[in-house]
Amino acid sequence: MPEKLNDFSRLCIHTMTTKPWSLREAIDGYVAAGVPGITVWRQHLEPYGAREAGRMLRDSGLKVVSLCRGGFFPATGAAAREKARDDNRRAIDEAAAIGAPLVVLVCGSSPKQPLAVSRQQILDGIAAVLPHAKEAGVRLSIEPLHPMYADTRSAVNTLEQANNMVTAIGSDFLGVTVDVYHLWWDPMLEAEIKRAGRTILSFHVCDWRVPTRDLLNDRGMMGEGCIDIPKIRGWVEREGFKGPIEVEIFSDEFWAQEQTRLVRRIKNAYLQHV
Amino acid sequence: MPEKLNDFSRLCIHTMTTKPWSLREAIDGYVAAGVPGITVWRQHLEPYGAREAGRMLRDSGLKVVSLCRGGFFPATGAAAREKARDDNRRAIDEAAAIGAPLVVLVCGSSPKQPLAVSRQQILDGIAAVLPHAKEAGVRLSIEPLHPMYADTRSAVNTLEQANNMVTAIGSDFLGVTVDVYHLWWDPMLEAEIKRAGRTILSFHVCDWRVPTRDLLNDRGMMGEGCIDIPKIRGWVEREGFKGPIEVEIFSDEFWAQEQTRLVRRIKNAYLQHV
Repeated sequence: MPEKLNDFSRLCIHTMTTKPWSLREAIDGYVAAGVPGITVWRQHLEPYGAREAGRMLRDSGLKVVSLCRGGFFPATGAAAREKARDDNRRAIDEAAAIGAPLVVLVCGSSPKQPLAVSRQQILDGIAAVLPHAKEAGVRLSIEPLHPMYADTRSAVNTLEQANNMVTAIGSDFLGVTVDVYHLWWDPMLEAEIKRAGRTILSFHVCDWRVPTRDLLNDRGMMGEGCIDIPKIRGWVEREGFKGPIEVEIFSDEFWAQEQTRLVRRIKNAYLQHV
Repeated sequence: MPEKLNDFSRLCIHTMTTKPWSLREAIDGYVAAGVPGITVWRQHLEPYGAREAGRMLRDSGLKVVSLCRGGFFPATGAAAREKARDDNRRAIDEAAAIGAPLVVLVCGSSPKQPLAVSRQQILDGIAAVLPHAKEAGVRLSIEPLHPMYADTRSAVNTLEQANNMVTAIGSDFLGVTVDVYHLWWDPMLEAEIKRAGRTILSFHVCDWRVPTRDLLNDRGMMGEGCIDIPKIRGWVEREGFKGPIEVEIFSDEFWAQEQTRLVRRIKNAYLQHV
């Protein structure tokens, strides 16, 4: 087990966790609550534009941890794949504009073609946009998604696959994201975290509710589910990762609540269960 | 791709697929539809008892493919684990009584303890009941379940894990079940089917709906989802498996329909999409 967290210096919240808040409200809410880090989702960026959002974020003093999300490379047509690559280049530009050192990739999947084909298109897509990322000084991070999202969201469903891709491409500007929600079940997780080593670029937490009532929007608050978050944090930290701990919770239940209270609840859960 | 199926000689239906039907109705319905194989779930057996059910099944001329389900070995207390083992011994006796050569194991998982502990308890549980299975002339088959069931239903979530357990125990009375719904996403699936080889004891089909609306009871009819069933069937048959093809669909939608029509729909989908 890792050392207990006893302050909020590494805490980061995703704007999707407080989805009802605009970026303005999220910035103000996090600052007021003493949350130092923010990961910005593109849908929260959009109403302001990256330049204005960058100004707001710099003024706030918040640390911008990453931009979510790039990816979605697979498609059955070449034109659609090229469009996806262009969109990733735009995401990289937006990340640079708001001072995010990282774009997280939800790699995509198309149910209309074999998974093996989607996986190759992901590899090709990342390789194609990496030069743009390097030029912008922004890293890309492959986030393996839970196998229940293999149909449309990501054909990368284990850390082993993500590690294989990082090895195959071999760039300092490419790494992996460890999200406990997607990976907790994997018997190879400890070994693959060890293998990922210094290529671990970010770390996401929430919990797996028992029972989980919805495939998409029923993630749990840390501590209310069955994931041993401290153990996984320990594995990640053993490899040298001491970066932000990002709270990313999709939950219809939490989105219906008063978001200031939700942030308070996150802070409590963070000290007790992460 | 394997040879196209052009008759129903290998077709088997799980009584859970036609859940509203009693065992009596299922037997009559399958016989009337020319479905030669049946896999019996214990909840359908219960009202009759194994002896009477065995008589009904023998009289029907149906081939009894397997009994579903044993397993659920993990528990935090030793007494509960012993109770689970006793229940598995009873399932083995029931299988023998109805002429089922196989008990399928949904291995279980407890969210109250680490997955590694549940996994060890599964291995110990199987080893403990195997002598009883051998004596009864009934095989046990480990069915890896989709990772979205790792919290309470099975801590065995990949074919690799199941193969490791079969190798560790090393008995002719233990093998694996390949269910396309649970395993289709796994990048290691082809390799692990190859590794399983002659230990593949049964093969289950249905489909993964896009989108899937419920974690438990929204499985799709073959052909209406994104699983390449013929490809996986080809991998299994390359290893020498030529046994029954079992249709196991949990679906609130299908259970609400007229079951005779559902069986007809299964037969059509079987020839076209398996």
